[in-house]
Amino acid sequence: MQASHRITHILGGGSDGWGVFSKARRMIADGIPVTELTIGEHDIRTAAPILQDMHRAAIEGHTGYAAVPGTASLRDRVAARVTRRTGVPTARENVMITPGGQAGLYATHVACCDVGDTALFIDPYYATYPGTIRGAGAEPLAVAARPEDGFQPRAADIAAVADGATSLLINSPNNPTGVVYTRETLEGIARVCTDHDLWLISDEVYDTQVWAGEHISPRALPGMAERTLVIGSMSKSHAMTGSRCGWVVGPADMIEHLTNLATHTTYGVPGFIQDAAVFALDQGAAFEAEIGEPFRRRRAMAQEILAGQNAVTLVPSDGAMYLMLDVRSTGLSGEDFADALLDAHRIAVMPGESFGKAAAGHLRVAMTVDDTRFAEALRTLCDFAREKAQLA
Amino acid sequence: MQASHRITHILGGGSDGWGVFSKARRMIADGIPVTELTIGEHDIRTAAPILQDMHRAAIEGHTGYAAVPGTASLRDRVAARVTRRTGVPTARENVMITPGGQAGLYATHVACCDVGDTALFIDPYYATYPGTIRGAGAEPLAVAARPEDGFQPRAADIAAVADGATSLLINSPNNPTGVVYTRETLEGIARVCTDHDLWLISDEVYDTQVWAGEHISPRALPGMAERTLVIGSMSKSHAMTGSRCGWVVGPADMIEHLTNLATHTTYGVPGFIQDAAVFALDQGAAFEAEIGEPFRRRRAMAQEILAGQNAVTLVPSDGAMYLMLDVRSTGLSGEDFADALLDAHRIAVMPGESFGKAAAGHLRVAMTVDDTRFAEALRTLCDFAREKAQLA
Repeated sequence: MQASHRITHILGGGSDGWGVFSKARRMIADGIPVTELTIGEHDIRTAAPILQDMHRAAIEGHTGYAAVPGTASLRDRVAARVTRRTGVPTARENVMITPGGQAGLYATHVACCDVGDTALFIDPYYATYPGTIRGAGAEPLAVAARPEDGFQPRAADIAAVADGATSLLINSPNNPTGVVYTRETLEGIARVCTDHDLWLISDEVYDTQVWAGEHISPRALPGMAERTLVIGSMSKSHAMTGSRCGWVVGPADMIEHLTNLATHTTYGVPGFIQDAAVFALDQGAAFEAEIGEPFRRRRAMAQEILAGQNAVTLVPSDGAMYLMLDVRSTGLSGEDFADALLDAHRIAVMPGESFGKAAAGHLRVAMTVDDTRFAEALRTLCDFAREKAQLA
Repeated sequence: MQASHRITHILGGGSDGWGVFSKARRMIADGIPVTELTIGEHDIRTAAPILQDMHRAAIEGHTGYAAVPGTASLRDRVAARVTRRTGVPTARENVMITPGGQAGLYATHVACCDVGDTALFIDPYYATYPGTIRGAGAEPLAVAARPEDGFQPRAADIAAVADGATSLLINSPNNPTGVVYTRETLEGIARVCTDHDLWLISDEVYDTQVWAGEHISPRALPGMAERTLVIGSMSKSHAMTGSRCGWVVGPADMIEHLTNLATHTTYGVPGFIQDAAVFALDQGAAFEAEIGEPFRRRRAMAQEILAGQNAVTLVPSDGAMYLMLDVRSTGLSGEDFADALLDAHRIAVMPGESFGKAAAGHLRVAMTVDDTRFAEALRTLCDFAREKAQLA
C-alpha cells in the first residue's frame, strides 16, 4: 500500500545534518558519558507548584473536553499578556490555544498557504521549519541570513524572492543562533511583507529570554497586526516543554478559521493543562526571569571564556538558550568539527549544518547543563578548536 | 489579508444541522434548565486514581519532551492490548500515540491521501469527518447507509463509488447510530477495500462499549492488516476525553511516516498523560466495563420504555453511548422534531440531520445524564412523538 506523496516527502531528503546528534544518543544508550549541549530543553523540570495546580484542576473535574480555541481564562490571560508586552490591543478573539508551539507553526502555514504556495523562511532555522511547510503542502524557500551580518536577515535578500510568495516565517530570539532581531531588521521585514502582501508568521517562543537589547514583536509595527500571526508557548518561558501548550495570536477572523482547523485536527488542549498555564502566567515576570537566569548566567560565562582565545568566535547571541560559535578558523565544517569533538572529548554540540546552509562552519551550543560542566565543556571546545586551527 | 482557500472551506457550507444544539446551549447560558442528551461525553469525570498517577509522573519529572511517536511503555501497552483483543500480532512499531483520536483521524487522511484524492466515508457520520477530510486536502464522498438495513453499510453501495478513491473511513461501534457492524458487513467492506485498493481507516474509539454481539476490528480480517489504520483513544473507554490521548495502529512504515508528520504538527503527547494512560490501561477490562456500565444500563432502560409505544422506533443500537431513534412516523424532520421538543420540554437531542443525510427523520440521543432524568426525558420524548404522529 502506498503512502501519500506529501507524507513521504516531509523530510525533504539528503542528509539531515543530525548524524552527530544520533551518534551521541547511541553513545549514551551504550553507557558512554557524553556532555550533551544539543537540545533546547532546560536542565530543570516544570516547577512543582505548576504541577500541583494542574492536579488541583484535574481533581476538581476539569477533565472533559475543553473549548477547542482554548479556555476563556487562558485566552484572556494570553491576550492581556500580549497587550502588556507589545502595546497592541489584543482580545480573547485574537488568541487560539494550541497543543504546543509546533502545532501553531503548522496550523498557521495551513491557514495562510494553499497547496503549492511558496512559504519563505530564514536560514539558519529551527530544524522542523521546512518539514512543517512541506507537511502543510506549501513549498519552503529559504532566505539565507549572513554570518557577516551577525545573522540578522537583510530585507533586500527577502524582497529578492518575495514576489509570488504567500508567507514569511521568522524567529526572534532565534533558534539556532541566539540572535535577537533589531528594530531595523524587523522594520525591514515589515516593509517587505507590506510591499509583497506576505503573511508574517512570527515564532516568538523565546520572547522572555533576552540578555541584551529588547524583544520587539513585529506585530506591533505599523500596519503589521493585520498580517502577522505570532506563535507563543509555555515551553521555554516556563519550562513546560512536555505540557504541549502554546498559542497563536492574530486577526480575529484568522483565529476563527484556525479554530475550525483545530476542531478537525487536535480538538483542543487538556483543560487541566490550560489551568496550569494560567497559574504559571500568573506567577509573573520574576518567575520567568528565574527560568531564564541559568542561560543568562551561562552566556556571560561563555563570553568571558571566549574572550580569552581567538580560535572560536561568538556570534552576537543576545537571547534564547543557545550560543552560535564560528569555528571556520579551524578549516573544518561544523559537522566535521562536532563529530571530532564528540569522538575526542565526548562533548556533543550541534553542527550549524543541522540548521540549514547559512550556518555552515558554525556550532550551536545549548546552554542546558550545569554551570561547571558547561564552562568545562566550552573550554575544552576552545582548546580543541585552537589545536585544529593550528593544524589547518 | 486572505486566508487560504482550504482553511476557509473546511466547514463545507450550508446549514451544519447544529442549530438545535446551539439553541440549547444559549438557553442554558440564559439560565434555563435543559436536559442535554447531545454530546458524547460521560456524566462522570476521569477517575481520581488515574489523575493521581498522572500527578505522580509529573512530580517525578516526566515533564520534558516525550518521544514523538509516544513513550515506549504506552506504545507497548497499546500493542499488547490490540494483539490480545484482535489476534493480530502488533508491536511497538505498529503504534503511534496521538493527542486524541481526532488527531489520528486527520493524520491518517494526510498519510493516505494526496491533495484532491477522494476519501470515502459512511453517512450518517461523526460530525467532524467531512471537515477532517477537507482539512487534509482530500475530497470527501459520503456513502449512505440505509435505515432499512439498520444503518449497516452495503458493500455494493461503497463499491459503486470506490473506483479512483484512495481511502474509506468507517466507525464501528458507530457514532451517531450506536450500530455495531456485523462480521458480514465488515467482510463486505474488506472485499471492497481489497478489490479497489483502498486504505481502510477504522475509527474504533467505542470498541469497549458493545452491549450485544461483538466488536470485530477489520484489521483482523484476512489481508487487511497491511491496508488498515485503526484509530483508538482513551477518551470513551476510560472517560479521559479531556486528556487528549489516542493512537493509530497500522503498518510499521506508515507509523514511521506518521511520526514524521507528528514531528511537524504536534511534537508528541505530554509524557505524564501517557504515563496515566498506561496506568489506566493496566486497570484492565473490569474498569472499562465499569465506565461503560451506565450506557449499557440506560440502553436496557430505553429498550423497555420504547417497547411500550409505537411512535418512535429504536435503531438496533448495540454499542457506544448513543441511541438512534426513528421519528419519521411523526412526519417531522429530525431537526423540526428536536427543535419542537426543545421548545416544549427543554430536552435537547441531536437531529439525525446533524450527521449527514442518511439519518434524516431520526434523532441521536446521548445516554449521558443520570438514569432517572434519562428515563423521564425518553418517556417525554415518546409522548411528544405520539402527539405529533396523531397530528400528522
